[in-house]
Amino acid sequence: MKALFIGGVKSGKSRHAESRTLKMHHDSVVYLATSEPIDEEMRTRIARHKEDRSKRFLDLEEPLDLVAAIEPIKAPLLIECMTVWMNNMLYHGLSKDDIFTQVESLLALDKDIVFVQNDVGSGIIPDNALAREFVDISGRVSQMLGDGCDEVYHCIAGIATKIK
Amino acid sequence: MKALFIGGVKSGKSRHAESRTLKMHHDSVVYLATSEPIDEEMRTRIARHKEDRSKRFLDLEEPLDLVAAIEPIKAPLLIECMTVWMNNMLYHGLSKDDIFTQVESLLALDKDIVFVQNDVGSGIIPDNALAREFVDISGRVSQMLGDGCDEVYHCIAGIATKIK
Amino acid sequence: MKALFIGGVKSGKSRHAESRTLKMHHDSVVYLATSEPIDEEMRTRIARHKEDRSKRFLDLEEPLDLVAAIEPIKAPLLIECMTVWMNNMLYHGLSKDDIFTQVESLLALDKDIVFVQNDVGSGIIPDNALAREFVDISGRVSQMLGDGCDEVYHCIAGIATKIK
Repeated sequence: MKALFIGGVKSGKSRHAESRTLKMHHDSVVYLATSEPIDEEMRTRIARHKEDRSKRFLDLEEPLDLVAAIEPIKAPLLIECMTVWMNNMLYHGLSKDDIFTQVESLLALDKDIVFVQNDVGSGIIPDNALAREFVDISGRVSQMLGDGCDEVYHCIAGIATKIK
Repeated sequence: MKALFIGGVKSGKSRHAESRTLKMHHDSVVYLATSEPIDEEMRTRIARHKEDRSKRFLDLEEPLDLVAAIEPIKAPLLIECMTVWMNNMLYHGLSKDDIFTQVESLLALDKDIVFVQNDVGSGIIPDNALAREFVDISGRVSQMLGDGCDEVYHCIAGIATKIK
Repeated sequence: MKALFIGGVKSGKSRHAESRTLKMHHDSVVYLATSEPIDEEMRTRIARHKEDRSKRFLDLEEPLDLVAAIEPIKAPLLIECMTVWMNNMLYHGLSKDDIFTQVESLLALDKDIVFVQNDVGSGIIPDNALAREFVDISGRVSQMLGDGCDEVYHCIAGIATKIK
């Protein structure tokens, strides 16, 4: 079973994704954080998220090779978030094709995975070519996740609406 | 009864929020404008909005202390809009905690209130730290409103879809 | 019959709009491209779109006068996309009123038309006045299309949700 929670910043994605993962009725669930705590703002965000999270989650951290990190895990997994992971991949010199290939591999794993993804494509088209490319890559990844997941939820104002 | 209309710029939020307020079947309804007419662009926007509005609305203006402005009012109220109000609060040196506290107080009032809120969080994450913080605050306020309101509508292309 | 597909960048609008047009059961359908291949990035995007498209589409190109281009056509038409067309209109010195008037004329045509429109208004309000005006114009056009179309679909993560 795979589920996607997509929405803007602070749209309630994390809360609903966590609660969906916890509903998978296993004794333990895993929280896979993709963030690298590279600056103070990021460290504060990560700490705040951790505080808000249920203690039932076992924490795992992996900024790049999600497939390798997930393979040995049997419990349902929450990946938070795909947007940050894409950013890590590009920042560390990997290509958009590396991103698409890994997303395909993730979707092909026989695991219960809940994906959190930011919607970054519904604002004005950025005048910065790199940002524009990121929006494109992000949208293509969202489409792959939307196609590959059994359930898709659109989040806004803390409300998750099931759209698939 | 409290209702929230959330959506992007010119998504039809105002039109649907006004019509929802007018359906509350009171003899009079109040339009609480949070905008401060600080420049020509703003004055033009305010005048255009006023022109489009039903004459059944009694106009009220309050850029900061919404709770105090609303307390004496018995009629259903439309607050337009929360995003501008947040901006006013920060501009006048108030903190995000002042914002969250006032939103809690608004939601605790035993009044019929229709809130209009801009979705500003579904575009590319701004590279400007202040804009990023505004997007965060706005998202948290949207979640508080989404949790506290009885009805929530997502607006796009002039269509309001009930999501709660 | 008129239908609108609205969503962010790479939200799956094109794919669903094409499939909706092809479902109109005519022997042939027309693809009206509004893009002007002014730079390499645009040429690459246009070529990629063309490759992805069904061979049942007859290609037509018109960056400005959509009404004149459409009038002689009997087959169902897909216009991709309105956002680029608006940009062309402003770039070539036409006004927002020219845009609104032409959208009205398009909606008044007794034709089967599927419109593709970018949602550009759900991110942070741009600090650039021109971008802000574009977001406003785009939102007003989206509302006109939403009002005038028989079917409206909101696209995200490759999923088209019927909202009208």
